[in-house]
Amino acid sequence: MRNAAGFGGVRGESAASAYGLPSVERAVLLLARFPGVGRKSAQRMVHYLLRQGRGEVEQLLVALQNLAEQVSECRICHNLAEGEECWICVDPRRDPQQLCVIEEAMDLLAVEKAATFQGRYHVLGGRLNPLAGIGPEQLHLHSLEERLQTGTVQELIIATNPTVEGEATAHYVAQLAAPWVERVTRLAYGMPMGGELEYLDESTLYQALAGRRPF
Amino acid sequence: MRNAAGFGGVRGESAASAYGLPSVERAVLLLARFPGVGRKSAQRMVHYLLRQGRGEVEQLLVALQNLAEQVSECRICHNLAEGEECWICVDPRRDPQQLCVIEEAMDLLAVEKAATFQGRYHVLGGRLNPLAGIGPEQLHLHSLEERLQTGTVQELIIATNPTVEGEATAHYVAQLAAPWVERVTRLAYGMPMGGELEYLDESTLYQALAGRRPF
Repeated sequence: MRNAAGFGGVRGESAASAYGLPSVERAVLLLARFPGVGRKSAQRMVHYLLRQGRGEVEQLLVALQNLAEQVSECRICHNLAEGEECWICVDPRRDPQQLCVIEEAMDLLAVEKAATFQGRYHVLGGRLNPLAGIGPEQLHLHSLEERLQTGTVQELIIATNPTVEGEATAHYVAQLAAPWVERVTRLAYGMPMGGELEYLDESTLYQALAGRRPF
Repeated sequence: MRNAAGFGGVRGESAASAYGLPSVERAVLLLARFPGVGRKSAQRMVHYLLRQGRGEVEQLLVALQNLAEQVSECRICHNLAEGEECWICVDPRRDPQQLCVIEEAMDLLAVEKAATFQGRYHVLGGRLNPLAGIGPEQLHLHSLEERLQTGTVQELIIATNPTVEGEATAHYVAQLAAPWVERVTRLAYGMPMGGELEYLDESTLYQALAGRRPF
């Protein structure tokens, strides 16, 4: 087809700019900024919205507006909250003696979903990464220290991500907590469930071996 | 950790409903409706928006509002358009003798990007799928026939997707066009560039063999 008449010309300008429509281009550009959303996915989203029509867009607009207006940070643990405090901090059934330190509010959902943890959380809001300009002052470490100084917390469970920066953050938090907390623990390293030994990376296998437990 | 104190209780209600925040839940729900966006991606998008703050959300709101208000369908080819006609239909350099029939407006972008096609398009707005209630009346076939009846189109290039429904649609379009158009063609089937013979499915290999060309 490429060499048939009509296919051989110079690539048209309309092809270079993809859409000749500023409003579509703008929406694609902004949607493509979302994490994990590329240009193609953003285009698909725009086409989906246009197919759905006004009602769907209107719903989404209202939802995003509400999101921006109503959601803020819990003043205690920095989790997402609609009021001053999040749904975990206001829940009297959550054990204040156990505190789980996580990097992001999304990690909280993961822990809540997987384990029946009944303690409370502290969201750091990121991880130490000096190269990206994120030092201890950029994280919610001061408020963590304040919480620990009250003496309520008996066990601090560090659940940062198993990455170089997550590790560095874990060490920093452990040192910070040592004077105030009896037990500082961290999530276990080892084989992920359902994985195969053959495909496991060396460092995970090393951790699994080092952390072996009696059968 | 699961059996340590505090981890053994019944799964809390807050875990079941994930967020205790209606505005977050609502935004996640609506974003998860996008094609290719699951619940987890939608959560990531929400967290991204909340991290970015008001400015970013505001920009997105304006962009989506503009999208819904300004973009409609080209009255000639049913491509996306900001006015009455799309950027291809108003371009006098595009050859009106060649008409490429595609299922969706997104397919137009794919063709524009890949081939230096200088003809015009007709967007069907879907494909025949009787089980889903999509018959000829649901597609833009009437306007296609009207375009063909003017006698301007010399070649109709059918570029529906290589699926069962796409094939059925192609056959329907070919029959519809036969009385009016000199040449009805379709995109070639065969090996995708960069693929490996070993991993090719039978039907593609069959098509590649059947459509073999002199070297």
